[in-house]
Amino acid sequence: MTGRGGHRGRFITLEGGEGVGKSTQLALLAGALRARGFEVVETREPGGTPGAEAIRALLLSGEADRWNPQAEALLFAAARSDHVARVIRPALERGAWVVCDRYVDSNRAYQSGASGLADEDMMALHRIGSAGLMPDRTFLLTLPVDQAQTRAGARDAGLPDRFGARGRDFHEKVAGAFAGYAAREPERFRVIDTGAGKEEVHASILAALADLMP
Amino acid sequence: MTGRGGHRGRFITLEGGEGVGKSTQLALLAGALRARGFEVVETREPGGTPGAEAIRALLLSGEADRWNPQAEALLFAAARSDHVARVIRPALERGAWVVCDRYVDSNRAYQSGASGLADEDMMALHRIGSAGLMPDRTFLLTLPVDQAQTRAGARDAGLPDRFGARGRDFHEKVAGAFAGYAAREPERFRVIDTGAGKEEVHASILAALADLMP
Repeated sequence: MTGRGGHRGRFITLEGGEGVGKSTQLALLAGALRARGFEVVETREPGGTPGAEAIRALLLSGEADRWNPQAEALLFAAARSDHVARVIRPALERGAWVVCDRYVDSNRAYQSGASGLADEDMMALHRIGSAGLMPDRTFLLTLPVDQAQTRAGARDAGLPDRFGARGRDFHEKVAGAFAGYAAREPERFRVIDTGAGKEEVHASILAALADLMP
Repeated sequence: MTGRGGHRGRFITLEGGEGVGKSTQLALLAGALRARGFEVVETREPGGTPGAEAIRALLLSGEADRWNPQAEALLFAAARSDHVARVIRPALERGAWVVCDRYVDSNRAYQSGASGLADEDMMALHRIGSAGLMPDRTFLLTLPVDQAQTRAGARDAGLPDRFGARGRDFHEKVAGAFAGYAAREPERFRVIDTGAGKEEVHASILAALADLMP
């Protein structure tokens, strides 16, 4: 994917549990990239297009058992298919940077790592829905589980969130799954401890993108 | 799956293009099976549960290009996952007959046969979402395409249907795909020409279930 400026767009994702500061860091990163002259598309999953936002509304509302893990995984993959086809791929093709709050690794961690689906099935859904498009770099933002839950509880959240409402054991499985993916793909992943202040975390993220700058 | 009566439930699906008489034949079949003393669950896809009906509403409304074929296939598989887990499997486990208007063969015909996705990907979605549950018998109701479109146009349909609105070439591809599945699985499929009257078609369907009666 090579844009008009002769460089290929970059696809950056932020991953991690709830309350870990992904949306704050996404805004800081997008600002810093724009200051360097890049076109930046800020987006999130599930969502990012009208169709995917409609699926997001189905996914996040209702009781914790509204969907079985298989249906949940299929709905996420459907939302992503629309998002990749209509927003992410076109942006990368014109040379933009795409920074996305959650992507396929979140599904792997929530539906596979913590809910028992096979990781290879998660990746099969991603291949079928989105031709398996993977990020150029993924930042895994980490925090001890207790501290993350405090932050998530404190923020001014909108809808009740079916995932945030699950117990501590669930969130520990999610964190363990994320750590495993990062360990298996060190080229793609950078693990950032968010115990430091947000400016320091932001600086770490920017530094870890130097090799992707054109 | 063995019910209280010592027999396993039977899973029957009706497939074919729009306007071919599936819902009429489903009602007649359900009535005939009830008259023989069986518990019968009448259902349809996409839909059959509150969650799946919500997905159905997303699938059938909007413009023809609202969803790409990949997202569409994933949404159908998500709806089916809910439907199989909450309605179809429990019914079969208690020994009921389940008669369903459309099932996975429709997705194979519409998203794969007519829209270019690989049939093996359709079956992978079905395996991941619903453990690949297949019908004991599938009736493919056939009619020349022109006649089917006239019937569909004449019936008192509810919502505008994104699939019915597609052109003749699309519907011919769908019909060809269905015919191919039936030819490859003669044990499961029975092809019924609906050019005859509805009572005659009903009699043909009942006769073709004799080997499944306990």
